[in-house]
Amino acid sequence: MRIAVIGAGAMGSIYGGHLSLHNDVYLIDTNQTVIQQINQNGLTIQENGQDTVYHPFAVASTEEVEPVDLIILFVKALFSQAALEANKGIIGPDTYLMTLQNGSGHEDILGEFVPENRIIIGTTEDNGAVLAPGHVRRGGAGNTNIGMLVPDTEGFLPRLKETLDSCGFCGHIHENIQQLIWNKLFTNVSLSALTGVLQVPMGFIAGNDHAWTITKKLIHEAVAVAHGLGLDADEAEITEKVRLTSVNSPEGITSICADLKAGRKTEVNTISGSVVRASKKCGVPAPTHELIVDLVHAMEER
Amino acid sequence: MRIAVIGAGAMGSIYGGHLSLHNDVYLIDTNQTVIQQINQNGLTIQENGQDTVYHPFAVASTEEVEPVDLIILFVKALFSQAALEANKGIIGPDTYLMTLQNGSGHEDILGEFVPENRIIIGTTEDNGAVLAPGHVRRGGAGNTNIGMLVPDTEGFLPRLKETLDSCGFCGHIHENIQQLIWNKLFTNVSLSALTGVLQVPMGFIAGNDHAWTITKKLIHEAVAVAHGLGLDADEAEITEKVRLTSVNSPEGITSICADLKAGRKTEVNTISGSVVRASKKCGVPAPTHELIVDLVHAMEER
Repeated sequence: MRIAVIGAGAMGSIYGGHLSLHNDVYLIDTNQTVIQQINQNGLTIQENGQDTVYHPFAVASTEEVEPVDLIILFVKALFSQAALEANKGIIGPDTYLMTLQNGSGHEDILGEFVPENRIIIGTTEDNGAVLAPGHVRRGGAGNTNIGMLVPDTEGFLPRLKETLDSCGFCGHIHENIQQLIWNKLFTNVSLSALTGVLQVPMGFIAGNDHAWTITKKLIHEAVAVAHGLGLDADEAEITEKVRLTSVNSPEGITSICADLKAGRKTEVNTISGSVVRASKKCGVPAPTHELIVDLVHAMEER
Repeated sequence: MRIAVIGAGAMGSIYGGHLSLHNDVYLIDTNQTVIQQINQNGLTIQENGQDTVYHPFAVASTEEVEPVDLIILFVKALFSQAALEANKGIIGPDTYLMTLQNGSGHEDILGEFVPENRIIIGTTEDNGAVLAPGHVRRGGAGNTNIGMLVPDTEGFLPRLKETLDSCGFCGHIHENIQQLIWNKLFTNVSLSALTGVLQVPMGFIAGNDHAWTITKKLIHEAVAVAHGLGLDADEAEITEKVRLTSVNSPEGITSICADLKAGRKTEVNTISGSVVRASKKCGVPAPTHELIVDLVHAMEER
């Protein structure tokens, strides 16, 4: 397969590197240092304490590249639109576009570039970290969950699973991938933005009556929206899961909290913001999520 | 008249001092330094650059004091309940209880101590500052707006106006005092809690799209609740007034913002919280105010 991975961070490098074993892989990033390093010395992935060098084609621009079979988007969701726009020359009529990014609703942006039957959404349970330019560590390896928004009439998902599995991943095809994405989203939308607005660690939420009151509203609305989308969601079960996540990681700092503290833009649009967009699609109100998203954006712009 | 002023801060001292010209005034405070200073050297009020010494009876406890004709409550609203509880011995069957405190809804707490026809609510346009224990400055002097929740069958308001006017105040009796209180409240509930949550100066609100979106929701809900209470409120007019307040005081820091920054409890319950309580009374929802109140309380308890 001809594959382009956009974003040579930890996850992009892990997928780009491994997939280059049996595929033509373009690893695309705007960071010239990383590109140069990979082209000169290869991409080094540390796994189980051992370094292996891979050789994807690292490029900053895809102007001279022909359309590919599959693009995997691994930039921060904030930059998805710009990254696809800058590389739209490699999107042909047969190109599939895949996101494994955190949060949900990425299909809205992908849908601006390819038709619905060319979009693959999912989650990855792999994790990793950048050690140096061109050098990443692969931490835990888990499932790569993939699915489509419409029936897979061309049988692409089995081909993709085979491609993933042959390169050291563990592909799982899901009939109802949105359900899986939302299962993960519930905890995220209940804790992330609120800990950001309050600038508190995760443990504060379950331990403070006022914060917990707000969290229960966030859960209630997210569950209603999920039902509006035709997904399963058990409010009591999710509430207990969120409570345990707070209690069990008392010192945990969410990404939105850390980004706001550091004065960075956050990914709130693809976390709480995706509940707001889904709410508008299905006509089920989510005013608390709406307000929290505005608060986070206002804090970003202070 | 026998008058007790509870709270010897700037405003309590200005009212207690002036009223002591022609009345028996007990000035009550838990701060022993202030009490001792006033009893030894009198209460000094600087006005138009000139110091005048007044001699109210300053006391920390009213255990030995007989019920009074009028109690004026000038503690921070947070402490209203405790202050009245501690001095309930001076509340007799004929005692009137008056609040000129910031915000609205103070009558809820006053109503726990006297019947509705003994409650006087209002606002003061005077302002001042504490210079030292027993020494305050009276800044601008304006109207003291007073009114009752029910018809003034005993004709107390005219007597009170006369008492105020004869002691250097400018009493104004209002048939619809809630209207006046809410006119002032609209700006307060639209800016104070939100600047606190965002930790921004007043100017930020009108200048940031996300903050302004939230503010418009706050105004919309407060106007709906006011209508629910039978009060007049013009949403467009209030919105413009709030916008101008933000634009004209760009560096202004609201009390809730300052209190949260300093790690203090805020007066949010008598500002935004009074909209929430009014909303419950009249059955008009105010979910944004409810959420903002919870956010402020959660921030107080970090």
